[in-house]
Amino acid sequence: MRYRDAGVDLAQSDLLKHGIVTAVRSTWSRAVRPIPNGFAGVMEFPAAGSGAPLLLAATMDGVGTKLHVALAAGRVADAAADLVYHGANDLLVHGARPLAFLDYIAQSRLDREVVTAVVAGLARACREVGAVLLGGETAEMPDTYLPGVVDVAGCMIGSADPGHLITGEAVRPADVLLGLGASGLHTNGFSLARHVVAQSGLELSDLVPGSRVTLAEALLAPHRWYGPALWPSVAAGEVRALAHVTGGGIAGNLERVLPRGVRALVFANAWERPELFRWLIEAGGIPEDDARASLNLGIGMLVVCAAECAAGLKRALADAGETVHEIGVIARGERGVEWVM
Amino acid sequence: MRYRDAGVDLAQSDLLKHGIVTAVRSTWSRAVRPIPNGFAGVMEFPAAGSGAPLLLAATMDGVGTKLHVALAAGRVADAAADLVYHGANDLLVHGARPLAFLDYIAQSRLDREVVTAVVAGLARACREVGAVLLGGETAEMPDTYLPGVVDVAGCMIGSADPGHLITGEAVRPADVLLGLGASGLHTNGFSLARHVVAQSGLELSDLVPGSRVTLAEALLAPHRWYGPALWPSVAAGEVRALAHVTGGGIAGNLERVLPRGVRALVFANAWERPELFRWLIEAGGIPEDDARASLNLGIGMLVVCAAECAAGLKRALADAGETVHEIGVIARGERGVEWVM
Repeated sequence: MRYRDAGVDLAQSDLLKHGIVTAVRSTWSRAVRPIPNGFAGVMEFPAAGSGAPLLLAATMDGVGTKLHVALAAGRVADAAADLVYHGANDLLVHGARPLAFLDYIAQSRLDREVVTAVVAGLARACREVGAVLLGGETAEMPDTYLPGVVDVAGCMIGSADPGHLITGEAVRPADVLLGLGASGLHTNGFSLARHVVAQSGLELSDLVPGSRVTLAEALLAPHRWYGPALWPSVAAGEVRALAHVTGGGIAGNLERVLPRGVRALVFANAWERPELFRWLIEAGGIPEDDARASLNLGIGMLVVCAAECAAGLKRALADAGETVHEIGVIARGERGVEWVM
Repeated sequence: MRYRDAGVDLAQSDLLKHGIVTAVRSTWSRAVRPIPNGFAGVMEFPAAGSGAPLLLAATMDGVGTKLHVALAAGRVADAAADLVYHGANDLLVHGARPLAFLDYIAQSRLDREVVTAVVAGLARACREVGAVLLGGETAEMPDTYLPGVVDVAGCMIGSADPGHLITGEAVRPADVLLGLGASGLHTNGFSLARHVVAQSGLELSDLVPGSRVTLAEALLAPHRWYGPALWPSVAAGEVRALAHVTGGGIAGNLERVLPRGVRALVFANAWERPELFRWLIEAGGIPEDDARASLNLGIGMLVVCAAECAAGLKRALADAGETVHEIGVIARGERGVEWVM
């Protein structure tokens, strides 16, 4: 279990992380199925009578800085929906199905239109991923929030069959790494993107240079939900690991699901980066390493499968509407991710 | 299910509430067990094989303004712990047991000490209520949060036996209303309390006039967790309804669990208000109606039971360490709560 995703400062202090992890683990019972660096927490749900217990999976996320772009573009419902897709993908990574979502909406002063739009967006996405919007809390805190903005966080709860839990432990050398196309930034890299846009002098209503979509459209493209395409393969046991490309980019998230003794090679030229990413990197003068560490570069979900399954899986995913790139390979070696080219 | 607890502005607009409720309900499947005005959402958790499914219960809450007092007094861990007690009590109201908690911690700039303290407080309280700290998210958003403060929200997940679900539907005329003592404000009324303290010219380190505890100690007294005392009676089916006294005070929360055709009479003089409440009301010149609507007045949990069970239940709860007051009675009439005296 990876307890903190976005803690930039925290990541710098192993001692502190240790303290937090120790506190968290002090609460764990034998019901917990620890997944090191997991995208969601997983534990046994108590069974009624003699039935074998299904697993409960849950993950907490915030929308983050994407909300500022969404507010500016009058599209806060879409950013809220993304939070649901994000949580659903985090569960999917471990073979869990969405079941329920609960939200937290906070502002300096509650703005009816904003709250209504947020809930509408959450509800729409919940219907899509098959989660019930089971509860929520709105908070009005003028001494905590800046005026005119909103924060939205949410907890996605799901269930998993213990026999289909995916942890990455099954990954083996010679496995193939597939990348599924992202629709845009998804929910990460928005601090960077906002900075680049501000520097560029462009407005959100301007076109992304070299493309026919506006910056608002490109930046707010909905976070892709990979469940419909991936479920059949997950249920059939054809997937050895999944990694949701969130904060930390392709390498940062892929590394989370690699077991000891294997490394991944990612071929940087195996896919064409979407226009938005090319423009952000060029206009912002973003060094390649930083771009790789903060942006998904057009790949929203990583799939590791056995080499003999790769062709069939690629076809199935493409048939289900995904853009599939074969972007790497698993090799023997020290646990980690190496960019090739 | 009561979708919004703290939405002051929202509560003024039935139309808007209707819109939100419609959106929320559009996500509901037949697995949902709707509890009108409930303290938590409840639904079936999928069963493995033929076992009868247990119910999943979940609730989202924020600490709210108590965090400001806690920050000023250097006791942020205690305020974080209260969020866990709050969520656990919300589940208890429906006969559900805590299972897992997930948190969201956000600041303008993450402060290591604050985040560590928050997680330590959450973990301590999770151990106490028997919940696993299953996940969490930290967010750093300088364009959303004011500097130097923190917001903490969290989702408490639990399980309930369908046979022991408590919804208030069982409440009958002539039932007895018991009130369990609160340790302080719990997590509500802090905006009001901060205002009174600021007006009074007292510091948090000053004594509450007429008492031997400081304002900080009184205001930050931990939110009481009623599970250990109430579980045996809940499991034995001796409780007809529970109401957690949160935002909205005694009447506002009691009304949430009353079925149609019954009203509750609350005897305002049936218990002595703790010193802190007496001082807040007097020093702040708070009208009685406002005090009743915003403060728990020393009662943290309401218990409705059949008259013939009352004596035994009072004894059992007192033996378990609770301060128990018989504060009212259920009568025939239009659904609502009437203060007597």
